Amino acid sequence: MANELKELTARAENYAQWYNDLVIKADLAENSAVRGCMVIKPYGYAIWEKIQRQLDDMFKETGHVNAYFPLFIPKSFFSKEASHVDGFAKECAVVTHYRLKNDPNGKGVIVDPEAKLEEELIVRPTSETIIWNTYKGWIQSYRDLPILCNQWANVVRWEMRTRLFLRTAEFLWQEGHTAHATKEEAEAETRQMLDVYADFAENFLAVPVIKGVKTASERFAGALDTYCIEALMQDGKALQAGTSHFLGQNFAKAFDVQFLDQEGKRDYVWATSWGVSTRLMGALIMAHSDDNGLVLPPKLAPFQVVIVPIYKDAAGLAAINAKAETIIKELKNLGVSVKYDNSENKKPGWKFAEYELKGVPVRLAMGARDLENGTIEVARRDTLTKETLPIANIATYIKNLLEEIQQNIYQKALDFRTKSIVKVDTYADFKQKIEEGGFLLAPWDGTPETEAQIKEETKATIRCIPLENPQEAGIDMISGKPSTQRVIFARSY
Amino acid sequence: MANELKELTARAENYAQWYNDLVIKADLAENSAVRGCMVIKPYGYAIWEKIQRQLDDMFKETGHVNAYFPLFIPKSFFSKEASHVDGFAKECAVVTHYRLKNDPNGKGVIVDPEAKLEEELIVRPTSETIIWNTYKGWIQSYRDLPILCNQWANVVRWEMRTRLFLRTAEFLWQEGHTAHATKEEAEAETRQMLDVYADFAENFLAVPVIKGVKTASERFAGALDTYCIEALMQDGKALQAGTSHFLGQNFAKAFDVQFLDQEGKRDYVWATSWGVSTRLMGALIMAHSDDNGLVLPPKLAPFQVVIVPIYKDAAGLAAINAKAETIIKELKNLGVSVKYDNSENKKPGWKFAEYELKGVPVRLAMGARDLENGTIEVARRDTLTKETLPIANIATYIKNLLEEIQQNIYQKALDFRTKSIVKVDTYADFKQKIEEGGFLLAPWDGTPETEAQIKEETKATIRCIPLENPQEAGIDMISGKPSTQRVIFARSY
Repeated sequence: MANELKELTARAENYAQWYNDLVIKADLAENSAVRGCMVIKPYGYAIWEKIQRQLDDMFKETGHVNAYFPLFIPKSFFSKEASHVDGFAKECAVVTHYRLKNDPNGKGVIVDPEAKLEEELIVRPTSETIIWNTYKGWIQSYRDLPILCNQWANVVRWEMRTRLFLRTAEFLWQEGHTAHATKEEAEAETRQMLDVYADFAENFLAVPVIKGVKTASERFAGALDTYCIEALMQDGKALQAGTSHFLGQNFAKAFDVQFLDQEGKRDYVWATSWGVSTRLMGALIMAHSDDNGLVLPPKLAPFQVVIVPIYKDAAGLAAINAKAETIIKELKNLGVSVKYDNSENKKPGWKFAEYELKGVPVRLAMGARDLENGTIEVARRDTLTKETLPIANIATYIKNLLEEIQQNIYQKALDFRTKSIVKVDTYADFKQKIEEGGFLLAPWDGTPETEAQIKEETKATIRCIPLENPQEAGIDMISGKPSTQRVIFARSY
Repeated sequence: MANELKELTARAENYAQWYNDLVIKADLAENSAVRGCMVIKPYGYAIWEKIQRQLDDMFKETGHVNAYFPLFIPKSFFSKEASHVDGFAKECAVVTHYRLKNDPNGKGVIVDPEAKLEEELIVRPTSETIIWNTYKGWIQSYRDLPILCNQWANVVRWEMRTRLFLRTAEFLWQEGHTAHATKEEAEAETRQMLDVYADFAENFLAVPVIKGVKTASERFAGALDTYCIEALMQDGKALQAGTSHFLGQNFAKAFDVQFLDQEGKRDYVWATSWGVSTRLMGALIMAHSDDNGLVLPPKLAPFQVVIVPIYKDAAGLAAINAKAETIIKELKNLGVSVKYDNSENKKPGWKFAEYELKGVPVRLAMGARDLENGTIEVARRDTLTKETLPIANIATYIKNLLEEIQQNIYQKALDFRTKSIVKVDTYADFKQKIEEGGFLLAPWDGTPETEAQIKEETKATIRCIPLENPQEAGIDMISGKPSTQRVIFARSY
């Protein structure tokens, strides 16, 4: 049944190749003519739009508003926050000129040497600096606080090795930047947004995540604390799916943003920032999909149901069209999105393979015999099972089935993660287990030295220290020093 | 009642200053630290989000899908379409390097001279080139057509003189790019999108527009025909509010995009592109607002109703809060968005001025006497009138009132435009009338020479040749040659 052109590399054979095949063949994205920059194709973008809409609703429910800040940041801004400059002002796109002119020596255009900028502009890799420079003008007193802004934007980080959605030079994201009168309020905001991300990951992406805090060496450049949600992919590698940073007063100090508190005392403003990106598309794809193609959770599928008519002639098609119309209407009334594919230039087998590849949660098929018998074939993408059911009340059945599929996809990912969390106590065991992938729970003495050595020798990093982590006396695998808790190690994307 | 800090320059005194004051003081946008780039503030962005959502729905209803193409375009792409290069590859942001490094001679960062790009990248001023380069890989046969893509994106044009929303170096927009098998289909698409824009302008922005086609000299660089909607601002200047381009096969030829038609014959693909931008915010502001501030059409107001309680003490406020809660619930049930401002650190008079400045369509005020009498004060922003009404059924009354306001704002703009369209037949008359502003309907001999001379001498341009323009024999004002129709001249933004 599978379309040969659409055949995927098997996961077991070459996971990285499977992922790339899938992204390309399911029409999600492709590489562009510009190194490292992707084109997000309509089917992929439709999923991103659903992600955006849902997150945006959740941000607004928690009191946030959207705004828009400039794409460009003056070069000097990056030097203002000492640790930020090392993290971000390196691999980035630099605008040096503002005009082209016709090449006097021939055809084409050249950069006009007379149109050199006095100060170079950096295409934003993240917007803390330009935003805090702006907030300075917005904040005088506690009455101007909190500021709870989010922006949906494109950012650029000049990555050397890129992979569609997972690591691209340009990517789409949202970045929240909030300003508060107190440390406590900013910390609560940081944690609140982490909870929003975890809620979204589990209930919409259907990807279970571990909430935790990063070690100092894995922190965002300029943060006092970086919280994260960590997901596990099917190949046993971790993927950081979202981060929420408590920035303390670092950016307020760098950009001199002070406020008068209720007692008339001046203080620097407290900050947070938090973001998720098109990388979530990578998590969504890798967490659930199989060798036949995408498996999409119903809540994020561009369309949840596809109906394919099976017919011999025009009269047969007309009869099915009429019946399908009723079902489509019933489904839409229940809020189910549906595509009816009665295109005549493709055979049913081709269509079945195509929608399987594209991860449509439920496929309905109807033929002449179904019309006679009052039945319809219902196929689930997640389990690849099918059954023939009476057509009466089929819409309600589908509506419930979609909820079951959403839940089942999550459960499957959760079961996989549960069996992939392993406790290890010795470095020998660690080195062996890390080859099998998964989250390794190991004791750690809390020093950057052992963390660095493990990373160097095994390519595993501390993904996070889980929140509300049980305290447990142990011995660091490397230094032999005492450890008070286990932390999560993994290789990661 | 007005807050002194919020006082605007009067329109009659200095229209340009009034506009700038209004954008700043109503918290719509401000200039950023980056020359020519604006910050769109939350209140302004909330209006833009409503514009986006509505347009996006209209695009989808007409069969379009969203996608995303790279921010950067290789410099050489601009030279591929001969007329496009002159129009766009001039004032633009040029990325020449991809890395910064610490300044070895001191503090801060410098551009790493070793990280020079082999080919410079241009920050997209519009995306025809990169998109048609991409479409080449998507199109083999007529079965792959039409492609009906839209993208919401930021673009950069290095403007020397910028004005918030009206002309900024970076702006937000949507750009549709469609590919078709036939000329007829592409032309129909061009006209369909013009109709969508006109529908949106009139029924949502409440701005009447004239649909027309540009003269050759005002065409988009690379188009065979540019259609536009032209709006009239209160100062008598025209504002081009949207354009839809029939691109013929120009970009298909430039990027070698061919397809096999149903007869197996190869041909170049036909193209359109169409866009509107944050400039629409400028049109919205300038078309309706007055010396007291913004006047927003209810369909695009971030919130349509504000309720201000007027109270002496905590008990008084509590009583009003209880009553307000009921009204808010009723309004929300009717789909009316409402803000209840019972903040205690601002006086009612300050709030009245603030929401007047921000253009909230309806203001409700409730005091102790209203509670006693079962009444509420209803103030309209568009007419600045107020009345005291029984509180029973107030929600339904408001719902209807909002429709009336939407209609009234449109009618007012339409009446203004109607009296601002003037027929002129002599150049002497033209030169006098153009000083008063408005759309001047004048005969034109159809040559670029007279068009250029008029522009040079009066700063008026041909805004468009209206669609279905009545044919009327006349004499060109300059050349004395015969003219077959009147065209619309105006000074413009």
